[in-house]
Amino acid sequence: METILHLLPLTAEQQDAFRAAAPEDEHLFLPTHDRRGAADIPADWRARTTILMGYVPPADLKRFPRLKWVQSWNAGVDPYLVPGVLPRGVVLTCAAGAYGPAVAEHMLAMLLAVYKRLPGYRDRQHRHTWEDLGPVQSLHGKTVLVGGTGDIGSAFARLCRALGAARVLGLHRSDRPAEGFDQAFPLSALDGLLPQADVVALVLPHTAETAGLMDRRRLLSLRPDAVLLNAGRGTAVDCAALAEVLSSGRLLGAALDVTDPEPLPPDHPLWDAPRVLITPHTAGGYDHMALTLSNLSALFLDNLRRWRQGQPLHGRMK
Amino acid sequence: METILHLLPLTAEQQDAFRAAAPEDEHLFLPTHDRRGAADIPADWRARTTILMGYVPPADLKRFPRLKWVQSWNAGVDPYLVPGVLPRGVVLTCAAGAYGPAVAEHMLAMLLAVYKRLPGYRDRQHRHTWEDLGPVQSLHGKTVLVGGTGDIGSAFARLCRALGAARVLGLHRSDRPAEGFDQAFPLSALDGLLPQADVVALVLPHTAETAGLMDRRRLLSLRPDAVLLNAGRGTAVDCAALAEVLSSGRLLGAALDVTDPEPLPPDHPLWDAPRVLITPHTAGGYDHMALTLSNLSALFLDNLRRWRQGQPLHGRMK
Repeated sequence: METILHLLPLTAEQQDAFRAAAPEDEHLFLPTHDRRGAADIPADWRARTTILMGYVPPADLKRFPRLKWVQSWNAGVDPYLVPGVLPRGVVLTCAAGAYGPAVAEHMLAMLLAVYKRLPGYRDRQHRHTWEDLGPVQSLHGKTVLVGGTGDIGSAFARLCRALGAARVLGLHRSDRPAEGFDQAFPLSALDGLLPQADVVALVLPHTAETAGLMDRRRLLSLRPDAVLLNAGRGTAVDCAALAEVLSSGRLLGAALDVTDPEPLPPDHPLWDAPRVLITPHTAGGYDHMALTLSNLSALFLDNLRRWRQGQPLHGRMK
Repeated sequence: METILHLLPLTAEQQDAFRAAAPEDEHLFLPTHDRRGAADIPADWRARTTILMGYVPPADLKRFPRLKWVQSWNAGVDPYLVPGVLPRGVVLTCAAGAYGPAVAEHMLAMLLAVYKRLPGYRDRQHRHTWEDLGPVQSLHGKTVLVGGTGDIGSAFARLCRALGAARVLGLHRSDRPAEGFDQAFPLSALDGLLPQADVVALVLPHTAETAGLMDRRRLLSLRPDAVLLNAGRGTAVDCAALAEVLSSGRLLGAALDVTDPEPLPPDHPLWDAPRVLITPHTAGGYDHMALTLSNLSALFLDNLRRWRQGQPLHGRMK
C-alpha cells in the first residue's frame, strides 16, 4: 500500500478519480499547499508519504523518509537532478506535456504585444497621451525558428501557423518527430538558421548544450528586425549581451519569461533596455491556468495507473 | 479619360499594375502623402483629379472640382456621409475587406495581453520588480460574442477558434452569412447573449443603431469576469460608464482601440481606470501593416477594373 501526498489544488471530482484509480492506497490531499516550502505539510504526513505528487523545494525532499517516487508538477526538474538532491533510489518524473497551451499562449501574447507596440502604448496610456506609434508587424509571411520541438514548441508552432506564418522551423535535441513544424533540424544547425528567422523562440531546458546558447555573437547574427523570445530556461540567453544589443538599436524586440540570473536583480541593465518585455517566469505556473491544472491532473492519474501496473512512466527522469 | 490620384504608398510594381489596368487614364502617384491634410497635393493635380484613391479630410473634398469617385482607404467612412460633405453626384466606396487581418490581430494581441496580465507586468518591469501576478486566462473553452460579422469580425472569430474558444457567436446587422462563427444572431438578440459571453468584442460601424449600444445597463449585465473589446467605433461604448464599472471592480478587463470622444481627452477617467488597455485607433492604420497595404492595393485595382467595365463596385456607400 502506498501513501500518496497530492499537492495539486484538485477539485473534489479529480480527488475522486485518484481514489478510484488506486482504491487500496492512502490519499492525502493538501490542495492549499504553499509551493514555497514544505512547512505546511503535517509531520506525520511527511513520515508516511511514499509518492509525492507536486513539488517541494529540493532541500525539503530529505524530510520524506519513505519516499519512492516524486511526480513533479514542473516540466523542467533540473533542481532535482543536482547530485545529492534526490534521495538514492527515488523515481523522478516530470510534467512535460502539461504546459504546452499555457506557455505557447503566453509566448504568442508577448510576441503580439511586441509586434503591435502594446508596451509603448501602455506607457503612453499612463501619460494620458493619444499618440500613433506607427507601423506594426504581423506573423503573416514570417519565418519562425523554434528552439525545442516538444510539447511547448509544437503548441507554439501551431499557433504561429494559425496566425499566418509562412515557415515554422524547429530545432530539436533528439530525433523524435517534431509535430506542427514545416521542417526540423538538429541544434547544430542553429548558426545557419538564425539569420533567416524573423522570430527566434526558445523553449529549451537547461543543459550543458543549451547554456549560453544565445551569446553575443549569435545575438548579433540575428536579423536587425528579428524578435527574440525565451520561455524555456533563462540560461539559454546571455542577458547582459542582450541588453547591449538592444541598446545599440538592433532587434525589433525581445520578450523573456525567463532570465539569467533569476529573479532578475533590480540593478540588471535588461530591465530598462529598449524594446524588451519581461515577465517573471510565470508562463507555465502550474496553478495559473485552468487547462494546465486539468492537464496535470490527467497526467498524474495516468502515471499513477502506470505505476500500479508496472508500466513505463511518462516523463521519467530518474 | 480619367485622372486618378493615388495616395496609397504603392510600390513600383503596384503602380505598374494600376497603369496596366487603366492604360488610357492619367495616373498621379503621391506615395508620400500626409494623410492629415490635402496641402501636399499640387493644385493642378487637384484640379484634374476625377478619381481619388485614398483619403483627404472631409473639408478638403470640395477642393477637387472634377471629382467623380472617391475610393477611400478607410473601412468606415462615416465622416464622408455627413450631409453636405460629399459633393453631389460623387460616388463613394469604402475599403471594407482590407482590414480583417490587421484589426483582428490587434484585438487578439490586446485580449491576450489582458488575459496574461502583460500591462501589470510591464508596469512592474519599469519598477524593476520580479513579481508573480497569479492566475491567467486562456481562450480555451471560452464563449466569445463578436458584434459585427463582416471581414474583421470573421477574421477575429477564426483567430479565437484557432486559440481554442468553445463558441464564437456573431451579432450581425444584416442577414448575410457570417463566416467563421458557430452561430449568428440579429443585433436585437444582444441583451440575451451578453450574460453568456466571456469575451464581448465589438467591431461595429457608427450608426444610429450602434451609438451608445454598450451603455451602463448593458455593461452591468456582462459577466463580472468578462473582457470587453472595442475596435470598431468608439461611440458603441459609453466610456464614462465603462470607467465607473471597471473602478467598481467589475470585469476582468477592457481593451479599446477606439473611444468616445476621440482622441480621448487627457482628463478622461478611462485613462487611469483599472484593468483597461487603450491604443489610439491604430489597429487598422492603412499604412501600418504590409498585408493591409497589399489588400488595399488589390481592392482598389479590382474596383478600378469594375469602374471601367461598369460593374457594381465593392464597398459602395454612395
